[in-house]
Amino acid sequence: MAGIGTIGVIGGGQLARMMVGPAVQLGIELRVLSEAPDASAAIATTAIGDHRDPAAVLAFARGVDAVTFDHEHVPQAVLELLLAEGIPVRPGPSALRFAQDKLAMRSRLTELGLPVPDWAAVADAREVEAFLREHGDVAVLKTPTGGYDGKGVRIVRSADDAADWLARGGPLLIEELVPFRRELAQSVARRPSGQTAFWPLVESIQREGVCAEVIAPAPASSGRESAVAAEIAVAVAEGLDVTGVLAVELFETDDERILVNELAMRPHNSGHWSIEGSTTSQFEQHLRAVLDLPLGDTAVLAPWTVMVNVLGGPADGDLARPRARALGEHPDVAVHLYGKTPRPGRKIGHVTALGAELDDVAYRARAAAAAFD
Amino acid sequence: MAGIGTIGVIGGGQLARMMVGPAVQLGIELRVLSEAPDASAAIATTAIGDHRDPAAVLAFARGVDAVTFDHEHVPQAVLELLLAEGIPVRPGPSALRFAQDKLAMRSRLTELGLPVPDWAAVADAREVEAFLREHGDVAVLKTPTGGYDGKGVRIVRSADDAADWLARGGPLLIEELVPFRRELAQSVARRPSGQTAFWPLVESIQREGVCAEVIAPAPASSGRESAVAAEIAVAVAEGLDVTGVLAVELFETDDERILVNELAMRPHNSGHWSIEGSTTSQFEQHLRAVLDLPLGDTAVLAPWTVMVNVLGGPADGDLARPRARALGEHPDVAVHLYGKTPRPGRKIGHVTALGAELDDVAYRARAAAAAFD
Repeated sequence: MAGIGTIGVIGGGQLARMMVGPAVQLGIELRVLSEAPDASAAIATTAIGDHRDPAAVLAFARGVDAVTFDHEHVPQAVLELLLAEGIPVRPGPSALRFAQDKLAMRSRLTELGLPVPDWAAVADAREVEAFLREHGDVAVLKTPTGGYDGKGVRIVRSADDAADWLARGGPLLIEELVPFRRELAQSVARRPSGQTAFWPLVESIQREGVCAEVIAPAPASSGRESAVAAEIAVAVAEGLDVTGVLAVELFETDDERILVNELAMRPHNSGHWSIEGSTTSQFEQHLRAVLDLPLGDTAVLAPWTVMVNVLGGPADGDLARPRARALGEHPDVAVHLYGKTPRPGRKIGHVTALGAELDDVAYRARAAAAAFD
Repeated sequence: MAGIGTIGVIGGGQLARMMVGPAVQLGIELRVLSEAPDASAAIATTAIGDHRDPAAVLAFARGVDAVTFDHEHVPQAVLELLLAEGIPVRPGPSALRFAQDKLAMRSRLTELGLPVPDWAAVADAREVEAFLREHGDVAVLKTPTGGYDGKGVRIVRSADDAADWLARGGPLLIEELVPFRRELAQSVARRPSGQTAFWPLVESIQREGVCAEVIAPAPASSGRESAVAAEIAVAVAEGLDVTGVLAVELFETDDERILVNELAMRPHNSGHWSIEGSTTSQFEQHLRAVLDLPLGDTAVLAPWTVMVNVLGGPADGDLARPRARALGEHPDVAVHLYGKTPRPGRKIGHVTALGAELDDVAYRARAAAAAFD
């Protein structure tokens, strides 16, 4: 028989790949539109095409119960076309807009009264200088669209630092350089019919703008901080009408405030720990939410879960040996590989460890990831 | 890039289906030979063909690193052909023979000194009568090959009860009707290079010859009983040179002995609990063992795990409503569906609950499964 519900995922990266297991489990048919036949989600790839091509996306989406995403790069016009054809898009274009355009996101979160860094839209050197003067002569400049993993973000100390991006035309987002103690992330899932479910607040450790490690729950977080983070994430999901999983990246400031940094409207690297660490993983939850099925329990299965990304991989490109080493030396660590060719800095997998003592759990996860260096 | 290791699975049922998630996780390419395009493991089906057809199986198996199985029905001649072509077959034909032929199994276990019910090979009414006389005028008669889920097994009290099977020719297996208190199952995985790893002993509750529930670990089992069961399973795996997962079905007799009932040389219904309940599931472990990768940790993640099969399904054949009900009423129970059309008595899925109190865990699992009635 066919699946009990069919979901079309646009984009064949590791996020689509990690939806395969839960889809198989729940009897959902997963169809993936990939850029190339050797995508990470190759096993579920049913069409090859460009996510910017309206005809390719429409042909892919016909007959599914809902369309969702591996990334946020599908143009608004393509999304609107799907809606016009009566195909449910989750999250919908009106929500995705705020994940695609950081200026729109900052503006909307400010309207909703949610805590964000000081920010402004700047279009010329004069506006950049004015913002810098008011914020201690340093700020973070971001391109409103197209940035990820540290790309499209830079620290500026003068208008000169912004000159090349300003020359491209169009407004940029400028923000205060938040004096933060650490980065946190709060994930929540929301169904079209309104139910929400959030996981524990986690700490996300970035290196060179890329997520390196996630600790669940965030160590030494007060109950108040966790409650504030969950309230913020639910408010964003409801205020922006997000459906599916939403990850809210947060700053914990030196003066103990929580500020919203970025949004991701899909399963997110900061939630990979939930595959082993929670009763319901972010990938299963995303599928449930996208089909408007009841959401699963988000309790943790161990006091601590640590996820460490496998970045780059071995210089000789041979993953068989480090995989055998990781499995052999760390039989209690879950190893995930994404079917990607190793390349410096590339996210090619992750590992997850669980346990009662954070030091021990973090050590095991880091050691297993290091087997791939 | 291609998979880091390629496994070919012969048979596209739910066991192959449940290998998909772990294969994706570990970066293994899984290829499945299914009987039909709508098999349970359709997502990984790369060829359609009959597992008894040497040409079809050989064409499928060329280029994989190892062949394994969703069932034990591949003829010895076909298996030997694969070996002759240099394709690793795990478990190999010399081991699988003992899962295919119950007379051969009983004979070999007896040679190994392992505890089995009293048994004999019988070919005529006189031999049946002789066995019955020595065993209280009741016995269990089994066809040596082709039986599963209660088929090919019957209780006999006279040679007349055996007449139709005897008329087919060929010896039958006759066994004492073991006065057993309950049924247990012990799973173990074994690599070609010799490493073994076993899960806790579990209790398996059968209804009408079909597994209905599994409780892990087996309640009220002594440490001695668990150790004996593990020793038996490891001895069978080593004595029969099994590679991959081996499930040993056991009787716990009224006088507290453990006797081997049946063997399954593949992941088995009695091990489905391990998907959520153990650090390494039987499906991931099977893939590791088949590729001769280091085996994973088999610790439990909660004091109790209960798996209940979903048998039959709703009379109207619509699984969407009971699935939504099960997910909604039991957000902490894992629901697995096999992509099969409901039919009375058919295994179409299972559910698994975990927790600290057995009564509560069993209640939740049974209630979630009952949503599909």
